Amino acid sequence: MANRPLITLTTDFGLNDHYVGTIKGVILDIVPEAEIVDICHAVQAFDVLDGALAIAQAYSYFPNGTVHLVVVDPGVGTARRPILLNTGRHYFVAPDNGVLSLVYAHAERAQVRHIDAEHYYRQPVSSTFHARDIFAPVVAYLAKGVEPAKFGEEITDFVRFNAPKPKPIDAQTLRGVVLRVDRFGNMVTNFTPEDVPALFQAEPPAFKIIVGKREITTMHANYAEGKPNEVFGILGSMGYLEISANRAAAAQVIGVGKGSEVNVVLEGAVAASNGQ
Amino acid sequence: MANRPLITLTTDFGLNDHYVGTIKGVILDIVPEAEIVDICHAVQAFDVLDGALAIAQAYSYFPNGTVHLVVVDPGVGTARRPILLNTGRHYFVAPDNGVLSLVYAHAERAQVRHIDAEHYYRQPVSSTFHARDIFAPVVAYLAKGVEPAKFGEEITDFVRFNAPKPKPIDAQTLRGVVLRVDRFGNMVTNFTPEDVPALFQAEPPAFKIIVGKREITTMHANYAEGKPNEVFGILGSMGYLEISANRAAAAQVIGVGKGSEVNVVLEGAVAASNGQ
Amino acid sequence: MANRPLITLTTDFGLNDHYVGTIKGVILDIVPEAEIVDICHAVQAFDVLDGALAIAQAYSYFPNGTVHLVVVDPGVGTARRPILLNTGRHYFVAPDNGVLSLVYAHAERAQVRHIDAEHYYRQPVSSTFHARDIFAPVVAYLAKGVEPAKFGEEITDFVRFNAPKPKPIDAQTLRGVVLRVDRFGNMVTNFTPEDVPALFQAEPPAFKIIVGKREITTMHANYAEGKPNEVFGILGSMGYLEISANRAAAAQVIGVGKGSEVNVVLEGAVAASNGQ
Repeated sequence: MANRPLITLTTDFGLNDHYVGTIKGVILDIVPEAEIVDICHAVQAFDVLDGALAIAQAYSYFPNGTVHLVVVDPGVGTARRPILLNTGRHYFVAPDNGVLSLVYAHAERAQVRHIDAEHYYRQPVSSTFHARDIFAPVVAYLAKGVEPAKFGEEITDFVRFNAPKPKPIDAQTLRGVVLRVDRFGNMVTNFTPEDVPALFQAEPPAFKIIVGKREITTMHANYAEGKPNEVFGILGSMGYLEISANRAAAAQVIGVGKGSEVNVVLEGAVAASNGQ
Repeated sequence: MANRPLITLTTDFGLNDHYVGTIKGVILDIVPEAEIVDICHAVQAFDVLDGALAIAQAYSYFPNGTVHLVVVDPGVGTARRPILLNTGRHYFVAPDNGVLSLVYAHAERAQVRHIDAEHYYRQPVSSTFHARDIFAPVVAYLAKGVEPAKFGEEITDFVRFNAPKPKPIDAQTLRGVVLRVDRFGNMVTNFTPEDVPALFQAEPPAFKIIVGKREITTMHANYAEGKPNEVFGILGSMGYLEISANRAAAAQVIGVGKGSEVNVVLEGAVAASNGQ
Repeated sequence: MANRPLITLTTDFGLNDHYVGTIKGVILDIVPEAEIVDICHAVQAFDVLDGALAIAQAYSYFPNGTVHLVVVDPGVGTARRPILLNTGRHYFVAPDNGVLSLVYAHAERAQVRHIDAEHYYRQPVSSTFHARDIFAPVVAYLAKGVEPAKFGEEITDFVRFNAPKPKPIDAQTLRGVVLRVDRFGNMVTNFTPEDVPALFQAEPPAFKIIVGKREITTMHANYAEGKPNEVFGILGSMGYLEISANRAAAAQVIGVGKGSEVNVVLEGAVAASNGQ
């Protein structure tokens, strides 16, 4: 562990309350030399998939050895386990509810431990704020250099789910979903270049992307190529197809949002690309 | 003071403007080695009680020696004094308007000084942004190691108020209030286990908690025990009775919010518990 | 460069996504000893002038040697250049779209370079997130001590614009605009004491400030001087005339906002002060 350990925070706590500040206090009381970085506290409340997407998108940009606290925890206070994931490069501390699913999916190796070494907890442990009483102190001691094995035994039955993948509807159509809408109104879908390679070619064949009542027939390489009022597809920075507009919020223009159905209709190519 | 002094910020400045960034610049220009942590900048604008609650909830989790800047300051530019509170463990710099009231209430000792050593101010001092021109530099010099006594004389007539306490309405009823609604829609009331111990027993006697048009008759130990659409009471992490729902925003479900009246009706036990 | 280099961030990315966290990861992976401070991520989306105002207001409070990342970048992925500004005291890395215009205006000297040393970029470079792939790594290497000259050649044809200035309408009237509305509902106009010195005298001559349907005839020295429901003018902390209310949001009271017209009518004095 570096002599200035790095800790990131990803939660659904928002920034309107003192919760995030409290967690930082608990951490710094144990490991005052730590550097704490917020990844995101605006994960949709109680939405484990949304949290899984947030941490999966950001963690790999941090240095090896970073400790990531990830708390989206509707089961706080119940029997769901606190876990510690070691990928060999990064550490993650989270509730065992699948919020690390997309990290498992990317990691070369994933050693998961059930945290039950209660002497690392803050006492008394509340039933409603384990981020303060369990996760934060564990993160701090881990960053301070305590060996992962000290926190609990390895387990293999941890909770994991797959991110929703586009599904073939007919020979020409794949149906996906809007995973999230970002600050700029870009609608991040769950289509990747692997799902529909033809769509991301320099010269794609004829296609339609159908979202709400809108049929989109243009792909652009950057936002500024968009004409006024045009809604178009683009390969976003998260590696997914995004539905966007130039200097405007596509989600507002189209009037749909998170969870909306997205159909990609592509002659010939769809079935092929999704056939594996 | 540590060689990496820790400073926290609690304000009603929000994060939409450059105000918080500016304060951090002023601090780091004086004490570049400081670590600055945001506790909360979403204190309700001009609401001194809301600020008092925020800092009181969070400060004790930080290490001894932490310097806390607390600015909710509708009287900025008037004769209200800037003050420095030393509790022996923590330092607080704030306007003398009661925003530290709940810290005084918890502290074993409270030495308060009227800050008037203008050579520690940023010049010229504006009439509208003392956080930048007075509080931030004082915090920075304090964190840098300047003795509290150098900033001004001790005073005893500082402003303080009591947080609103539940009041008995009749032999069976205590009336309190919703202090705040958090990010998850939990309604934090001003009832503590001291006010109504019976309510927090493992097997409480028959009770009703009345908020808006809703009568609540269940207490749960954690959020996940709540059934769909159920609104229930719970001992929250702040040490107060909270009105909550499982994976839903109780405040929205009930349709009431901050400042709403909360009546706890509890046969026999109420009068007893509040009789001191 | 200090042994704990200081980096600030000013963007229109908001805090709802993982974008800001990702940028911090990229920076800390290159220069782990850096201290990163958020100035503001709530710049109006795509609004280059709003970003120019935010960085211009805050940067000068930071220590000499600070590296400022400023990204409001509707042209991301197009031919618009990434630039590095050295004022002799501060460094700025930004897209060349005018977002540094108000910094140029204040700086004694401004050396601007076109960043094109691609070996400092993160590869592959996306078309939609240059803050992550170009600006963040450049900022990090700069903070790490790489000489500005290594990033590219000096240029003089960088984009710059003037902030909108009040214009005379007739001998007694200057017309300006609401530049922004802050968290408290203060309406920050583009009138400075230089534009209308008489307005800011201890005893100003008769005047009217007209915003929306409201005629304002009072200037106050601080917010608390305002009477209930009164809307008044004040010299704000940004050095501009602000339209404010005491413990209330003037913008809501008047019902106008960013971009609204502001007319200052001042007998005799206006023409004189604006005559240069």
